[in-house]
Amino acid sequence: MQRIINDPNMVVEDMLKGFAKCHRDIIHVEEENPRVIISNSFNKQKKVGIVTGGGSGHKPAFIGYCGEHMVDAVAVGEIFSSPTAKSFYGAIRAVDQGMGVAVLYGNYAGDNMNVKMAMELAEDDDIEVRTVVANDDVASAPKEDIAKRRGVAGEIFLWKIGGAKAAQGADLDAVIHAAQKAIDNTRSVGVGLGPCTIPANGKPNFQIEPGTMEFGIGHHGEPGVRVERLGTAEQMAQEMVDMVIRDAPFVSGDEVAVLVSGLGATPVMEQYIFYDEVEKLLRVAGIRVYRSYVGNYFTSLEMNGVTLTMMKLDEELKECLDMDCECVGLTQVRRP
Amino acid sequence: MQRIINDPNMVVEDMLKGFAKCHRDIIHVEEENPRVIISNSFNKQKKVGIVTGGGSGHKPAFIGYCGEHMVDAVAVGEIFSSPTAKSFYGAIRAVDQGMGVAVLYGNYAGDNMNVKMAMELAEDDDIEVRTVVANDDVASAPKEDIAKRRGVAGEIFLWKIGGAKAAQGADLDAVIHAAQKAIDNTRSVGVGLGPCTIPANGKPNFQIEPGTMEFGIGHHGEPGVRVERLGTAEQMAQEMVDMVIRDAPFVSGDEVAVLVSGLGATPVMEQYIFYDEVEKLLRVAGIRVYRSYVGNYFTSLEMNGVTLTMMKLDEELKECLDMDCECVGLTQVRRP
Repeated sequence: MQRIINDPNMVVEDMLKGFAKCHRDIIHVEEENPRVIISNSFNKQKKVGIVTGGGSGHKPAFIGYCGEHMVDAVAVGEIFSSPTAKSFYGAIRAVDQGMGVAVLYGNYAGDNMNVKMAMELAEDDDIEVRTVVANDDVASAPKEDIAKRRGVAGEIFLWKIGGAKAAQGADLDAVIHAAQKAIDNTRSVGVGLGPCTIPANGKPNFQIEPGTMEFGIGHHGEPGVRVERLGTAEQMAQEMVDMVIRDAPFVSGDEVAVLVSGLGATPVMEQYIFYDEVEKLLRVAGIRVYRSYVGNYFTSLEMNGVTLTMMKLDEELKECLDMDCECVGLTQVRRP
Repeated sequence: MQRIINDPNMVVEDMLKGFAKCHRDIIHVEEENPRVIISNSFNKQKKVGIVTGGGSGHKPAFIGYCGEHMVDAVAVGEIFSSPTAKSFYGAIRAVDQGMGVAVLYGNYAGDNMNVKMAMELAEDDDIEVRTVVANDDVASAPKEDIAKRRGVAGEIFLWKIGGAKAAQGADLDAVIHAAQKAIDNTRSVGVGLGPCTIPANGKPNFQIEPGTMEFGIGHHGEPGVRVERLGTAEQMAQEMVDMVIRDAPFVSGDEVAVLVSGLGATPVMEQYIFYDEVEKLLRVAGIRVYRSYVGNYFTSLEMNGVTLTMMKLDEELKECLDMDCECVGLTQVRRP
C-alpha cells in the first residue's frame, strides 16, 4: 500500500487529530467523546440542531460538512463503518438547544440501528429527535423498493437544505419537512473505474478489469447494476443522466441543482469534462441547471469514478440552497 | 487508461467548457481567446490586475484561483505545458485598468519565455506589467541557485497575498513588493508515491517502485532528490519539515501559514494524518501555525503524494492572508 499513514488501525484517530488542529476555527471535538465533531457556531443562535454521521474515508464527508448553516454535529465511524450509537447520541445531546434535533443521514443498516438506539437514549433526556434518511442512489434498489436504497452524495443536498432551514429559525417540523422534500427530490448514480483499499485490510475492496466500468457502484464498493466496456465521458453521462431523470422523473421545465463528485482518485479535470456532457444533455431535455457543484465532495478513499446527483428545486429549496454557509467541504457566499 | 474523457487530445478544451458552465457565477471565458479565464469581479473596483497562468492538470490550479480578491485572469496551457505568449498577453490586456498588471507565476522555462513575450506585446499597448516568479520548491535546486528553483504550491500564497494587496487598493509597486515578500518567505517540498498519466501520452510520467517514495518530486514528475523505503506519515513529515525549515530558515518564534496539498489521488484523510505530524514538529521547533490549509489545492492529475508549503508571516502578510476571497479553489470568509 502506497499510503501516507502511521498505524493502519489508527487512521481515523490520527486523521481526526489533524482535522481538529487544521480547522479549529470552524469545529471542535466533543470533550467526552473524540468521535463527535461539533461546529463552533452551533449555538450562535437558538435553533433546531442538525446532526449527521457515517463511516470515515469519504472526505470531506461527513465531518467536512460540519459548520455554520450546515451540520452542527457529526458522529464519526471507522473506515466505511457506522459510528456507534453512543457517538450519535453524543452528537444529538451536544447540539440540542431545546428546539429538538434533526438527524439527517444515509440509509445503511449499521447507521439505522445506531441512530435508533441513540434516539432511545435521547428520549430519556427529553430531547425530541426526528430523522430523514437519504436514499438517493437509484442503482441500489428498484423504485418499488425505494426505501431500501442507499444514501450517497445526495446527502450533501440534504444537509444543505436542512442546515439552511434550521438557520432560518424554522421549527423541527419545518426542518424535517424541507429536508425530507430535498431527499425525495434527489437522485444519484455512480460509476466505478477503479477500487480502493481500506488501510487495515490492505486489499482492494473490489475488482474492475481495465477497459471496463461499473454502473451503479456504491460508496463502499457495493456491486453496481452492470459492467460495461469503458466508454467516453459523453457515453457515461448519457447513461447516468438517463438513469437519474427517468427515475425521479425529472421533466422538461424543471429546475435542478447538479452535483458531480469524484470518488477520490479521479482528476477534477475529468469531472468537468463529465459535467459538460451532463449539462448538454439536460439542456436538450429542457431541464435548467440552477446551481452546480463539481469536485471531490463525497469520496471513497482513492476509488476511481464519479457520481451524478440531481435535486429538483422549488422556491423553498432554492432559498435554502442559496443561503451562505461555511464548512470545510462547502463554503458558499454568493447566489448563482 | 481508466479515464472519464472523450478525445485524449481535447481534454483541456473539454474541461474548460465544463468549468465555464459550472462556475459562470465566478468566471467567464475571454471572448477572443478561449484559453483566457477572467474573474467576473475583476473590475468591481479600480485596482492593479493580477494575472497568472500555467499548464493544465493541476486542478484547482490555475483557473480555480481566479476570483474575487485573488487572481483576475488566468492563461491556460495544455496538460503540464505553458500557456502561449498570446494567452498570457490576452490575460494581461483583459484586466488592465490603467494601474498596471502583476503577473504572478511559477519558474518554468516555457512560462518564463511566454510571459516575457507577452510583456513585450503589452508594452506596445502602454500597459505596465511586472512579474513575481515563484521558486518555492527547495528540492529543485540548491540554495545558492535559488533562482533556478521551480514554483509549486507556494504559488497559492503568492496569489493570495498579491490578490489581497491589489484588492486593498495598493499600487503596482506595493503589490509586487508584497507578492515578492510572500514567495521569498515561502518554501515547499513534495513527496511522490505514485505517478500520473497524461491522457494524450497514455503512459505513466515516471516510475515509483511499490514500497518506496521519492522526496523532492516535481509537479510534473521531475525527479526528486532521493528515493527511500516508504516510511510512516511521521517519518515523511520529519524529513519534509526538516528540509523546509532548514532552508528558509524558519526559527523558533516564527509565525507561519502551512499548506498541505495532495497531488491528486492521495485520500484527504492521509493529508490530515500528515498535517498532524507536521504541526507536532513545528510545535516542538517553537514555530506557531497561524493558519493552515489541507486538501487538494495543487494537484498533478492522479499523482499519489503530498506537498508541504510554509510561509513565514509578518503583519502585512497576515492581513493579506486573512482577507476574504472567493474562487473555486479557496473561498475564505473568516479570520483564523
